[in-house]
Formats: sequence, structure tokens, C-alpha cells
Amino acid sequence: MPAFAPARGSSALTTLLLRPQSARCTIHCLPRRQAGRRAGVMAPMALSKQDELKQQAAWRAVEYVKSGMKLGLGTGSTAAFAVDRIGDLLKKGELSDIVAVPTSIATREQAESVGIPLATLKEQPSLDLVIDGADEVDPKLDVVKGRGGALLREKMVELASTKFVCIVDESKLVDGLGGSKDAMPVEVVQFCWDYNLERLQHLPELEGSVAKLRMAGDKPYVTDNSNYIVDLYFETPIKDAPAAAKAISELCGVVEHGLFLDMVDVVVIAGKNGVEVKER
Amino acid sequence: MPAFAPARGSSALTTLLLRPQSARCTIHCLPRRQAGRRAGVMAPMALSKQDELKQQAAWRAVEYVKSGMKLGLGTGSTAAFAVDRIGDLLKKGELSDIVAVPTSIATREQAESVGIPLATLKEQPSLDLVIDGADEVDPKLDVVKGRGGALLREKMVELASTKFVCIVDESKLVDGLGGSKDAMPVEVVQFCWDYNLERLQHLPELEGSVAKLRMAGDKPYVTDNSNYIVDLYFETPIKDAPAAAKAISELCGVVEHGLFLDMVDVVVIAGKNGVEVKER
Repeated sequence: MPAFAPARGSSALTTLLLRPQSARCTIHCLPRRQAGRRAGVMAPMALSKQDELKQQAAWRAVEYVKSGMKLGLGTGSTAAFAVDRIGDLLKKGELSDIVAVPTSIATREQAESVGIPLATLKEQPSLDLVIDGADEVDPKLDVVKGRGGALLREKMVELASTKFVCIVDESKLVDGLGGSKDAMPVEVVQFCWDYNLERLQHLPELEGSVAKLRMAGDKPYVTDNSNYIVDLYFETPIKDAPAAAKAISELCGVVEHGLFLDMVDVVVIAGKNGVEVKER
Repeated sequence: MPAFAPARGSSALTTLLLRPQSARCTIHCLPRRQAGRRAGVMAPMALSKQDELKQQAAWRAVEYVKSGMKLGLGTGSTAAFAVDRIGDLLKKGELSDIVAVPTSIATREQAESVGIPLATLKEQPSLDLVIDGADEVDPKLDVVKGRGGALLREKMVELASTKFVCIVDESKLVDGLGGSKDAMPVEVVQFCWDYNLERLQHLPELEGSVAKLRMAGDKPYVTDNSNYIVDLYFETPIKDAPAAAKAISELCGVVEHGLFLDMVDVVVIAGKNGVEVKER
């Protein structure tokens, strides 16, 4: 664990600015989609500026991983860089005795492809560390997740972990959750989804939001758990996120929501001025 | 509404013993499965003793239905008698202007077959009355439901209703929930279901229970919502049902549970001494 890591539960936020890391990249640190398409190609490849930032954050987060740890592996383009990095360090022998629980079918396939030993939560109910991205991060290190659709599995795995390191590029920082004006997802059962959409739309705790069913082409998007997603779009940030989370959870037919409150321990943020680490 | 019905929210339990109703039955009041097999056959048919009791309770409950009401229709062998009875009264012109939300695919099909106009919760978000069975009823009129697997849809519909009339035969009465030693179901997502089974098994609020995955032959039983069911079996009744319900609901990956607390307004119980009505 890095020397600057405070004890879990410390309420102070500490910020460290580190030098940007190298943007060089081999196939092992490409985002999942690219890695899939180019399996076996080992030549360095140029990354977009945003992918460079995501990679920097992911590599910095992987410094928290120590041999012998039980890990959770997140889902999404930023988390994919961390998965590749862990696989690379295992191959090099710089890490050993790692076992990991993936948060999606896509992450499981990626982890298998880079040689990370896998387990289920039944086999490893207590994890040491999970590394995952986020869609929004507020100043208290509360986050919105789930635009990729894996919110339920991510939340299950992250709640099973002692430490949650969140990796983002600086575009994900908001003054308050909902502040990006992009989706805050709610996973709902398919039965009477439109009734639950209406109820979400009219919850006083979500005032000012617009609720829309997530689509995949001309059909509703279906999660790995066979549910639908209602995306909430806020005009202004959510006033009271814990109250909103509670009100959403209490609706029968809601399976999970994208507010991850009091769960993140560390946020690694890659920006044009370098990599910044914030700890709760 | 019957003259003896107290105002909603009254805490007193009132008990009325009524004379057993006739056990004669035509096709319209047969349980769903039988009705489906014998559609069009109008001759009276003998019922088993338990089916007679179920029919008596269902017919008594249907007395709460008035023309113009928006109804919820439950699922299961007892509720099926009520659905047939409502269809029969509509045909006879003794009820009119009824619209109903079914709680399962099976109930929807049955209601369609007997001519009850149907709606979704989106179309009818506020129901006047829902009639449904239960697996256990305790002295406070809290109930266990869901052995038929429709707990989530039933709970959604019942929470949308002003009045919930529960119909049972006397074999369903228990001193405390869980007291029948039969299943109290919990619907869980398929992902890491065995992890959630372990967590349910070890919740302090469920002490003394044994958790088992519900099977359908040699495969897990799958609900209408594509989830699994973990059935909890209790050695002794649940000590604190509200605490148990809260602890279960807080587990990420739990979709719904079979404890229906503070939801039932009226229980109609058919027994060898007649039909008994208890009101909350």
C-alpha cells in the first residue's frame, strides 16, 4: 500500500499531484474493445488523449495491488486499462497469488484473456481491493456509476471489498451528483417498467429530473440481469443524494441504482496537470 | 363496501363468523388449471374439501368488489377462484365497469379467458382493491407470500392498492411468520446467487433459518423476472419480522422478499366452522 494512504475511514481528503506517467502503451494496456480486436499484436499503439488519461489513472491505481490480494475488477473503458495492467504485472512476475472477481461478462472475458485467476463472490466473499471507474465523482468522493449497464454487479462486488479505488479522468468531476447532465441509471424489472419510470420521475427527492428508458437501437436495453434501465437526467445536481438513494431503493421493482455513496475510499484522477489522488 | 368494514388504518381486529357458503361450483369458479382444461364445460363439478374452503373465502372476498372499481388480481389457486367469480358476476351484469391489473402471466391469461378488462399499472397506477392469497397469515395480519413465485409482481400491485383483501383457508394461519416451517421466498438476481444465499443464511435477523435455492427439476427455478428464488425455512417463527425484512432488502442483489408487512387490510379465512373475516 502506498506510504501516503491514510487509515480507512479517515475523513480528511488528501490530494497529491504526481507527474504524468508515460503514455506509451502495448496491447496489454489497451481498452478492452481494442484489445479484443488486436489480440496478439504487441506493437506500441497511439492512444487518444482521453485514453492516455484513463491509462494513467488505471496504472496509478494498480500500485495499490499487492501480491496475495483478492481483487474486484470493474467494468468500462478505464477499468479495462487496470485489468490489462494487472495481467501484465502477473506475467512479468511483479505480482503473484492474485485472485479476482469480475463485475461483468465482458470483464471476465478480458481478465481470462490476460491470465488473471478468477473467482466468484461465493468463493471469495471478502475482497481486499476493487478498482473500477465512475461516471461522476463529487467533492465528497461519492460517485455515479452504471452508464455502462453493470451497476448491480459492480455494487455487489464493491460492497464486498475492504477498499474501493475509483479511477477517472478529470472530465468526470462534478460539483454535485447528477451535475454532468448525463444519465444516472436505475435498474428496474421489466414488469410495469413504465409505471416505475413514472414513479421515479415524480419522486420529490428527484425533483427536476427527467426519466427515460434506456434504448439499444429500437428496443429497450437489457442488463446482464435481464432488467431494463431508466436513466435519470438532472437539470441541477441532486440536492440530497442519500435521501434520493433511499427513496429510489424503496420503490418495489427497482433492483439497483447508480448512486454509490460512502463506498469509495480513493479516487485517482488523471488530468492535464498529472495524476491526482484523493482519499476519503 | 360491507357495512362492517372499519376505516382504513383502524388498528382493531374485528372477527365475524359467517355461515359457510354453498360449495356448488360451475366452471367459472374452478381453479385456474382446471378451468383451462375444461373451458366451455358448464356442468357442476365436485371440489376437494380444501378447494371448497378456498372457493368460500374467494367468493366472500369478491363481495368487496363494487362496480367501477380498479382491481388487482392475485396469483395462485385461491386467487383463481376470485378471478373466476369476478368474471362470472361481470357476465351476469351484477358487476360492471371493472378494470384489473393481473399479478402474473397466468392470472392475465385466466382473466382474459373469463372476460375481465385488463390494464397495466402505468394505465391504472391507483387501484381500489386487490384480492390475493397468502402462504402464511399471523395474528397481526402480516403475511408470507411468494411460494408460487409471483412475489415481486404481487407486491408491486398490492402496494398500488388502497385496500388489500387476503383470502386463505385456515391451514395458512400461523402464530408467527415462518411458523409453518415451509418456504419464505427471497427473489435474488442470478449473478452470485450462491453468495447471496450464504449471506441470507447468516443474517442475524434470520437466525435459525436454512436457505435453499428453489429448483424446478434439476435446474434452478426462474421467476417471471428472470431471477432465482432462495427459500428460507425457519425452525421457529421469525422473532422480528420488520427487522428481518429490512436486513434482507438491504442486501445488494436481493430483488424482493416474501414478507408482506403492514399491507393486508382484510383477511378472509375459510375453515370448517365457516368463513371468518379479520380486519386490521
